[in-house]
Amino acid sequence: MGEAWQQVCEQCGAIEALGTRTWRCAACGGALQFTNQLDFAAAAITTSDPSLFRYAAWLPPRPAGAPAPTLGAGMTPLIPGRLAGRDVWLKLDSLLPSGSFKDRGAALVCAYYRSMGIERLIVDSSGNAAAAMAAFSAANGMHCHVFAPATTSPGKLVQARAYGADLTTVAGSREDVADAAQQTAAADERNLYASHNWSPVFAEGVKTWALEVWEQLQQEVPTHAFVPTGGGSALIGARRGFGLLPGGSNVALIAAQPAACAPLVAALDAGAREVTPVVPGTTRAEGTRIAAPARSRQLLEAVQGSGGWATGVTEDEIVDAARALWSQGVYVEPTAAVGAAAFVRAVQDGRVPDSAVPVVLITGNGLKATGTIDEMLSA
Amino acid sequence: MGEAWQQVCEQCGAIEALGTRTWRCAACGGALQFTNQLDFAAAAITTSDPSLFRYAAWLPPRPAGAPAPTLGAGMTPLIPGRLAGRDVWLKLDSLLPSGSFKDRGAALVCAYYRSMGIERLIVDSSGNAAAAMAAFSAANGMHCHVFAPATTSPGKLVQARAYGADLTTVAGSREDVADAAQQTAAADERNLYASHNWSPVFAEGVKTWALEVWEQLQQEVPTHAFVPTGGGSALIGARRGFGLLPGGSNVALIAAQPAACAPLVAALDAGAREVTPVVPGTTRAEGTRIAAPARSRQLLEAVQGSGGWATGVTEDEIVDAARALWSQGVYVEPTAAVGAAAFVRAVQDGRVPDSAVPVVLITGNGLKATGTIDEMLSA
Repeated sequence: MGEAWQQVCEQCGAIEALGTRTWRCAACGGALQFTNQLDFAAAAITTSDPSLFRYAAWLPPRPAGAPAPTLGAGMTPLIPGRLAGRDVWLKLDSLLPSGSFKDRGAALVCAYYRSMGIERLIVDSSGNAAAAMAAFSAANGMHCHVFAPATTSPGKLVQARAYGADLTTVAGSREDVADAAQQTAAADERNLYASHNWSPVFAEGVKTWALEVWEQLQQEVPTHAFVPTGGGSALIGARRGFGLLPGGSNVALIAAQPAACAPLVAALDAGAREVTPVVPGTTRAEGTRIAAPARSRQLLEAVQGSGGWATGVTEDEIVDAARALWSQGVYVEPTAAVGAAAFVRAVQDGRVPDSAVPVVLITGNGLKATGTIDEMLSA
Repeated sequence: MGEAWQQVCEQCGAIEALGTRTWRCAACGGALQFTNQLDFAAAAITTSDPSLFRYAAWLPPRPAGAPAPTLGAGMTPLIPGRLAGRDVWLKLDSLLPSGSFKDRGAALVCAYYRSMGIERLIVDSSGNAAAAMAAFSAANGMHCHVFAPATTSPGKLVQARAYGADLTTVAGSREDVADAAQQTAAADERNLYASHNWSPVFAEGVKTWALEVWEQLQQEVPTHAFVPTGGGSALIGARRGFGLLPGGSNVALIAAQPAACAPLVAALDAGAREVTPVVPGTTRAEGTRIAAPARSRQLLEAVQGSGGWATGVTEDEIVDAARALWSQGVYVEPTAAVGAAAFVRAVQDGRVPDSAVPVVLITGNGLKATGTIDEMLSA
């Protein structure tokens, strides 16, 4: 079974075995991904398990270890909403335990590394990934060490600290933060650099959102999925998850980015084979402000291979979409409104047929962004 | 069916019909409650509905109207935890849509009042109830008008405002705030004063947490339930919910209050027939800082009738319990740690047999209290 789970470099095709400590291609530095094609059968879902581990048959097998703690992650609500005068399904990953979709990846990756004997996970993030990794590190009895830019607002890291994570702030660029994290990880073999942006195991966990949607739609896939895209694990997870399902390779994946930081939009517009880093502008959608996403080719494949597209939405569109969700009782952080904004734009542009069954992934809880939302309400 | 749902005054026994606009006994001012005894049968659960309306067979029938919006409320995770060296079930109502257990009451009461033709709900709260009522008012297409003390931190009301609630701040006591809300409600027949502290419909919604626990424990009731208790809707909901179930009347209900504001503890210690208001001290557990709970006799009955007890926990115990939950990956606001603190105390006091199957209700999300938690981490 392990052979089916080889990791392959998206750039040079080099292969890493399942269970490696390597987090990027040793040969060329490219991002790794699983390329296995698994058979899907509804009967293999552990329907008695309400957590995302109900899909264990399609998740990387762990070397050993006790049942993975779930914190209740999985089977988030899929509720009907209205946007741009149209019915739409809203997938509320904002209601996951730490408040964002990243719990899906963290639940799997932390259990996975724990079963490899790792004792301390090193993470570079200032936001939702830090909280998710800290939560599931704690649940798995591991230490978590978060490296964050010195410019990060202290309030954003309260949650990770409460879970027990250590915190180191680093002056300089985002690359400086990543370098510091990687050096700390390399200094002790009990440590592992567990970046949500690089780990292919993380993306496998995230794919469960798509599998849940299929179950919740009475074993049908949607026609379109609108996905806020920064580092892109939600988008790649969608491609991996829907791809398992009957007809799922044709679910059009729409990568939604803030116009202020839209490297994938730029690459697709230019017909490029890779995503080139951009200079990020200011945006309320902080979680999607990723200038140089690691999984460059995987992102392009997810959009192009699915027949989807990428959209850069303006700050006004993000605000309008957030208000539209809030006014229906769905409390989202601005980043989580980016997918809804892309849906509104798509309807206005005539890209969503009346017969479509669209789903919008709601990635993060509004309670994460009280200060920003207060400013939006006062504007 | 409607006759089974008469509302009875807990003090004088006067009866109000289902569907009344009266929110307290017109004769004596006492709190109303439903006293019907319904038959329970697992087969009557709408198991295809993941929301709390799966228990519609045991909820007050609405006069008319479309299916109630759920926002995804219901079937919150029940996960295993460890406290005081003991296994315990944690019921994560912190993961409900607006971030607290009050969504259960709000989901029902808003749908109910909407079906009565009410257009605007008037609420007095500065916290989780305001957010929950604003969310479900929005989902039901109603206006919500929140009255809050002028001393309330603006940040606490951002969520309710985002959902579209109007906000009026009132100088003076909590009674002054309630008076202002009630006067506004009485000025227009399209309005209704929808207090979570008084409405018996609200408590019926909250009882669904107990029904879910029974399903999640493979159709068994726990032996003990530890419940943070301020106004007491979670406690009364537990009594109403478990009371429907085989053996459920004997689930020992432990009312957990902060020692700084523990009127129920004081009343039980004094052997009183009613709860007398106390002068509240300072506590981090703001949601349970209710000096004069409305449902005085119902609270006493819930504890005494179930063979339970009430505990006033210190601030240190609250902090320790919160840290214990956080360190397992369960992010709670301080108020939501009060039940866990009472469980720890009970274990230390030898009141929880080894054979017990205890459950602790986790009432609110840590993301609600970033500032307070930051202070706790820095202390």
